[in-house]
Amino acid sequence: MTDLINRQYYLAQRPASVPTSEDVPARDVPVAEPAEGMAVIKNMFISLDPAIRGWMGDDPNYIEPIAINDAVRSSVIGRVVKSNSPELAVGDAVMSLGAWEAYTTGPAVAMNKLDESAGLPLSNFLSVLGPTGLTAFFGILDVGKPKAGETVLVSAAAGAVGSVVGQIAKIKGCRVVGMAGSDDKCAWLKDDLGFDEVINYKTCGDYGDAIRKACPDGVDVYFDNVGGEILDAALLCLNKFARVAVCGWISTYNDADAPGPKNLWQLVAESVTIQGFVVIDYMDRFPEAIGQLAEWVMSGQIQFKEDIVDGLDNILPAFLKLFDGSNQGKLMVRIPEE
Amino acid sequence: MTDLINRQYYLAQRPASVPTSEDVPARDVPVAEPAEGMAVIKNMFISLDPAIRGWMGDDPNYIEPIAINDAVRSSVIGRVVKSNSPELAVGDAVMSLGAWEAYTTGPAVAMNKLDESAGLPLSNFLSVLGPTGLTAFFGILDVGKPKAGETVLVSAAAGAVGSVVGQIAKIKGCRVVGMAGSDDKCAWLKDDLGFDEVINYKTCGDYGDAIRKACPDGVDVYFDNVGGEILDAALLCLNKFARVAVCGWISTYNDADAPGPKNLWQLVAESVTIQGFVVIDYMDRFPEAIGQLAEWVMSGQIQFKEDIVDGLDNILPAFLKLFDGSNQGKLMVRIPEE
Repeated sequence: MTDLINRQYYLAQRPASVPTSEDVPARDVPVAEPAEGMAVIKNMFISLDPAIRGWMGDDPNYIEPIAINDAVRSSVIGRVVKSNSPELAVGDAVMSLGAWEAYTTGPAVAMNKLDESAGLPLSNFLSVLGPTGLTAFFGILDVGKPKAGETVLVSAAAGAVGSVVGQIAKIKGCRVVGMAGSDDKCAWLKDDLGFDEVINYKTCGDYGDAIRKACPDGVDVYFDNVGGEILDAALLCLNKFARVAVCGWISTYNDADAPGPKNLWQLVAESVTIQGFVVIDYMDRFPEAIGQLAEWVMSGQIQFKEDIVDGLDNILPAFLKLFDGSNQGKLMVRIPEE
Repeated sequence: MTDLINRQYYLAQRPASVPTSEDVPARDVPVAEPAEGMAVIKNMFISLDPAIRGWMGDDPNYIEPIAINDAVRSSVIGRVVKSNSPELAVGDAVMSLGAWEAYTTGPAVAMNKLDESAGLPLSNFLSVLGPTGLTAFFGILDVGKPKAGETVLVSAAAGAVGSVVGQIAKIKGCRVVGMAGSDDKCAWLKDDLGFDEVINYKTCGDYGDAIRKACPDGVDVYFDNVGGEILDAALLCLNKFARVAVCGWISTYNDADAPGPKNLWQLVAESVTIQGFVVIDYMDRFPEAIGQLAEWVMSGQIQFKEDIVDGLDNILPAFLKLFDGSNQGKLMVRIPEE
């Protein structure tokens, strides 16, 4: 046993809707000495992503549910404090699959050592150079396949994924229309990121009318982060051979009885392709993508926001920002140094 | 004016649900002499397809609706009786976009002359060598992309499209499971066409249980002719990177309030691609496909059924067979020679 105490937030019961502190309470457990091949990291950043809500459910079809009494699963960035492996030394910064906890113990070979030499903030490896940036990269380029001159519509466009999707589509010469939930977010997309047109979905009235007005030539690529009514409206605005890239439907995660889209017959009417994907499908191409993204970040062609909430004990309220739309940019919790 | 009288079934009003004789009454109109470049054909076969129900609706997004008072649009095979074009001679057999009518007048260049030299029955050009066979061909090969050893699930498998889909998948080395609505149809699929497993969807009980039992290794390609609850059940049985080919959702055509599929989140969970298509997307490759299909027909590798109803005045009740599942094979009306 080490002298380290690990504060964890764990799944006591499966949430019926929005997770509460009864569903996800805290506990303090001792940290064991790492067995051979294992390392202990002190977490610095914990990534908060919509998929985690899916893992809290008990549907075995939705990836791997978190077991009751297990700490809530998340990607983390931490620094090695104990190592029983030649792969990692104390002081190394790594990204790993971890949990909502102060210390994560795991196999050293499954922890990705981060290159700190470029002086980029470590949090970037959870945002623009991490899962959300990579999701945007492969989703728009490999699934959306945008051609110069085409119209690309992005929902949740001010989010960590959507904002990068739109900027990549601009780099590729597309007309880019973003949907977001506040005038501030819309102004950021248009004025700072160069989106051609924006729609405030909370004030625009009928989604279909708003999309048709913002996309007079129709929609060739719809990057769908939300599903639900916006997907239904977007389906009616698609051009022949349009592509719909789907990387997660946050609007339905908390509602088991959410109806499916009614306008899916558009698939046949316009020969549309709807493709779901998760970023790990493209794992073998991560280095290529990180290199390209880093280049665009350095040249200023891609801007991004990080929404960093301080303090592990704020993690549940921070997580809920994903579901009321109040986060701006990639959401994560930072655990300050003691 | 010619001395020909054209009996037509036309759209008097848009059907609220299943089309009735009030929605689609008959009228007799004279046939005009063809203008320059036009030809008149006496129809021999009129194709009855689910898409026609879509054209009867008023949703401008569903391809082009039939205008009120226009004859109901269909593909037809007929023989030229008047020609004012060097392209066609009286006596030529052609396939054309026509209508539920005795005579069709249209531009000669838009009528496809049929090659009668091989002695194949002309009706075959509406079935296995026509739109349904071509829909099967491109749907399974280009959209479904089946690999040898994969499991292919086909709904409406005893239909004109589904039965050819399954046989092509068998030729490509797949394990093929068909769903159909009667024991007779199921027996035909298994005993005559060589499907590996069949499901009678009217007696199988829970669709999901039945599909899982018939597809113990999961479903890699789902060829979906029906949408609705069967699609929802099939979605839960898909393997990683599965493809769903959608060529028409007959179960929802008569129900404007039909709910959409609830399990579409499987798209993301299994990185699924759902692709809608219509056969005309592949028009430039029709000759290649007809040649291949004819070869498989000649060699006995593809069998097919035609459900031929005699008499133009039986066309509406014949059409409704598509919606109660009572047709066996490609449905068409034959207009006997006088």
